Amino acid sequence: MRILNGENVMETIIRENDNVLLYLTKKRTYLVTVKPDKTLHTHRGYIKLDELIGKKYGETIKSHLNTDFIILKPTIRDYILKFTRKTQIIYPKDIALMIFYSGIGPGSRVVEAGTGTGALTSALAHYIRPTGKVYSYEIREDFLLNAKKNLEKAGLINYVELKLKDITEGIDEENVDAVFLDLATPWLVVPHARKALAEWGTFVSFSPTIEQIVKTVKALRENDFIAIECMECLMRRIMVSPSGTRPESRMIGHTGYIIFARKTLREKA
Amino acid sequence: MRILNGENVMETIIRENDNVLLYLTKKRTYLVTVKPDKTLHTHRGYIKLDELIGKKYGETIKSHLNTDFIILKPTIRDYILKFTRKTQIIYPKDIALMIFYSGIGPGSRVVEAGTGTGALTSALAHYIRPTGKVYSYEIREDFLLNAKKNLEKAGLINYVELKLKDITEGIDEENVDAVFLDLATPWLVVPHARKALAEWGTFVSFSPTIEQIVKTVKALRENDFIAIECMECLMRRIMVSPSGTRPESRMIGHTGYIIFARKTLREKA
Amino acid sequence: MRILNGENVMETIIRENDNVLLYLTKKRTYLVTVKPDKTLHTHRGYIKLDELIGKKYGETIKSHLNTDFIILKPTIRDYILKFTRKTQIIYPKDIALMIFYSGIGPGSRVVEAGTGTGALTSALAHYIRPTGKVYSYEIREDFLLNAKKNLEKAGLINYVELKLKDITEGIDEENVDAVFLDLATPWLVVPHARKALAEWGTFVSFSPTIEQIVKTVKALRENDFIAIECMECLMRRIMVSPSGTRPESRMIGHTGYIIFARKTLREKA
Amino acid sequence: MRILNGENVMETIIRENDNVLLYLTKKRTYLVTVKPDKTLHTHRGYIKLDELIGKKYGETIKSHLNTDFIILKPTIRDYILKFTRKTQIIYPKDIALMIFYSGIGPGSRVVEAGTGTGALTSALAHYIRPTGKVYSYEIREDFLLNAKKNLEKAGLINYVELKLKDITEGIDEENVDAVFLDLATPWLVVPHARKALAEWGTFVSFSPTIEQIVKTVKALRENDFIAIECMECLMRRIMVSPSGTRPESRMIGHTGYIIFARKTLREKA
Repeated sequence: MRILNGENVMETIIRENDNVLLYLTKKRTYLVTVKPDKTLHTHRGYIKLDELIGKKYGETIKSHLNTDFIILKPTIRDYILKFTRKTQIIYPKDIALMIFYSGIGPGSRVVEAGTGTGALTSALAHYIRPTGKVYSYEIREDFLLNAKKNLEKAGLINYVELKLKDITEGIDEENVDAVFLDLATPWLVVPHARKALAEWGTFVSFSPTIEQIVKTVKALRENDFIAIECMECLMRRIMVSPSGTRPESRMIGHTGYIIFARKTLREKA
Repeated sequence: MRILNGENVMETIIRENDNVLLYLTKKRTYLVTVKPDKTLHTHRGYIKLDELIGKKYGETIKSHLNTDFIILKPTIRDYILKFTRKTQIIYPKDIALMIFYSGIGPGSRVVEAGTGTGALTSALAHYIRPTGKVYSYEIREDFLLNAKKNLEKAGLINYVELKLKDITEGIDEENVDAVFLDLATPWLVVPHARKALAEWGTFVSFSPTIEQIVKTVKALRENDFIAIECMECLMRRIMVSPSGTRPESRMIGHTGYIIFARKTLREKA
Repeated sequence: MRILNGENVMETIIRENDNVLLYLTKKRTYLVTVKPDKTLHTHRGYIKLDELIGKKYGETIKSHLNTDFIILKPTIRDYILKFTRKTQIIYPKDIALMIFYSGIGPGSRVVEAGTGTGALTSALAHYIRPTGKVYSYEIREDFLLNAKKNLEKAGLINYVELKLKDITEGIDEENVDAVFLDLATPWLVVPHARKALAEWGTFVSFSPTIEQIVKTVKALRENDFIAIECMECLMRRIMVSPSGTRPESRMIGHTGYIIFARKTLREKA
Repeated sequence: MRILNGENVMETIIRENDNVLLYLTKKRTYLVTVKPDKTLHTHRGYIKLDELIGKKYGETIKSHLNTDFIILKPTIRDYILKFTRKTQIIYPKDIALMIFYSGIGPGSRVVEAGTGTGALTSALAHYIRPTGKVYSYEIREDFLLNAKKNLEKAGLINYVELKLKDITEGIDEENVDAVFLDLATPWLVVPHARKALAEWGTFVSFSPTIEQIVKTVKALRENDFIAIECMECLMRRIMVSPSGTRPESRMIGHTGYIIFARKTLREKA
């Protein structure tokens, strides 16, 4: 499928300007935009990108050294993992939980800060399509410009409003369905989130340290949020091979803690 | 907001037939449909549901014993956790990962089996709205009838086609964006998934035992799927309280393993 | 074997006053002292304990309802899990790590506080036998009396000196090989531990909350300890059965954090 | 203290031939034997080892570049982590659990295979001192020679009998307190372990893959072992620093599964 004005249009042939993921191995994949005059160089040979035009996803293309690359359609996770990074991104496992637990979906209006690399931004945009909107705050202009490029490449820029603003000083929007935070001092944003959220709105925050979640939970309680939940998610890969089945030897031990909370209309304590 | 023909319409006043979540504590919540003649009975007193009409989300309602309940708008997670169950449901943490990693979004066409309680079905329907479709296979009619009620209550039945069919015998649909499996013998469905999936399609399967994932990975390799990943997700809650911050003493140690894979058009090995 | 004055004497026949573990299932075991006039009552029938005399470990004994119980020799873990409890005990997984990482062994002299139920005390005593000593501090006399009974039952009381004293006010011993703490305010004991430890001594502390470890690590740094390590240990059981292999559904998500540190002779910063 | 003929003798001054651990940072430590004519070279300067003689543990020694190294007495864990390796070693966390759960202690007689690097061997020897014995089987002579050197350095060789033998063909010893296995096919040793173990004996096995534990548990059941437990242990470090408290980003995700079982005298099924 191809996203066209927020609609999915069936389209199975690869054309100029399409993004494709060239798959060599699980750890070696290349996200390229099909430009007729460009060439992808890899340690297993080069591929002239115009040879991709007219092919189908799932087909194989050979490098000049006769190595097979499989042509995949990038998923939203693929886009995020290939984003040009100016700063660390939230891991896909955390993005998945934050979005599902927040309750947002097609049509939701969401505030987010900081934009950073645009990873969470693009995942939010992916799900609120085609009628929703993401308002994304960032104080660093260089981050914002980089995120813009990433969102454009992923075809999601139309669902996002990028704002060069300090969210700890206030939120412009009202009646939003959710506020997502990934910044150093989320507790400073809690009173603004209370104002910006619709009555049914959810608050979601991601922080690497314990001290941050302690302060944020305190601020949420003082601002009369309820259903406050803190959690961490550990993901472990399992290797299935003829020589035996076992979890991978090394894993990510910590990314951050996720906080969820629900707004109420009760008076502040 | 209110979902109306797949569109979100701003609506802040609770009306007859709305679903609301009455929140007493984190572990005591009640999902009710607002029917004027109904009463919710709890160990902290009863609430006449017609008193909810005209109130706003986030407001408080008192039981006849003067206990405060807060009126929340149920999220998709709340619906799932409150579904009438005929069998075990996939945990929200697993649903979140399966959906995000699959790459589906608004407009996607998805095959799922077995329907079971309808938990995964409804999460899929939530995200493919308003233009996508979920085709959900189930061999037990009683499960299907129960899932239908759950999907109706969650307002998502219009995005789902429930099918009383054995998916291990074949898949009717073609060119679907993803196949989601939560059944005892996923490896038997792998060849059918290969046929049903569009060239860019993803395969997602959930299984509790190691033996199941070993067989399924083997079938995926034989059917020329690539980018095969097996993983498990452990979620741990953190308690933040004035007496100290610490993870919860008890946690879910295992739900199941998730497998992801991508279709190719390579010839079978 | 039988422990006799700190020596192991080969002895295979069960005699009066021996402790045996009667095993029905993994979750149903009974630790009894063989007294000729006593009877064990279980939901699967009773066993007259004098029938155990003359039997061997590993043999089976039948209750009056003809149910088989297997006679096992209790390990140090079995003793600990069967201790009469006045307060929570440290889990065996944590005891194992604390002891191994501390470096103590036969002949070591160790200070411990608080005694509590005597679980850690008895494990320490088990390993420092026959020439070492455990000095165990406790401020509650009722805990101390209970721990004394537990240590007597496990045959380990001769290697322990129980002290009704507040360790936060000072440690009487000098040149000890290790200090083990499991109390509410370990940071208050750090300066005393510095004085009591031999130059090569190790500091080990167990605490349930983050705030406790933050304060303790700070105190250790101020008192010029080095090689400070904080860790937590998650143990998960795997079920192997004909219907499939999988981790157990529920696990202990948190017991506490363990801190290790090494004394130095550097001047205080 | 100093181990002398299995006894601990108080000794606080470092002398020729003592082993010391020179500590620069948590990740930079050096285990050296004090030989007057030797020099330790590090990226922070060199240290002439004869300067260590007459110093105390806990004191500081300066390299020729004026960098401070702290003189620590190596613990059994330090020895193991510094062993010359011919093959992978069992992690200290797993060694700790295997030993504690096995119930062995001073005076125990233990069979082990394979010797490998001698890591588990030396930990066993450390705890069964001074009157117990470890019988360690290994089929590769080069491993055995290397392990011998490691055990000699750790001062534990006197408590170990190294055997160049294939344990899958039988165990020479009888009435042993425990059998510890860390080899590719533990299930082949189960019948031999049944014969070698005393009636109260425990079986302990460590294996990286699921397939190994499934086969071993099956063999244990067929040989009438009871109280069979399979588990895995995840250890995670916590970083406490002024900039915040958080678990380490990367952790060991898998080492292996540990199996425990108890011998019975029941007839084989």
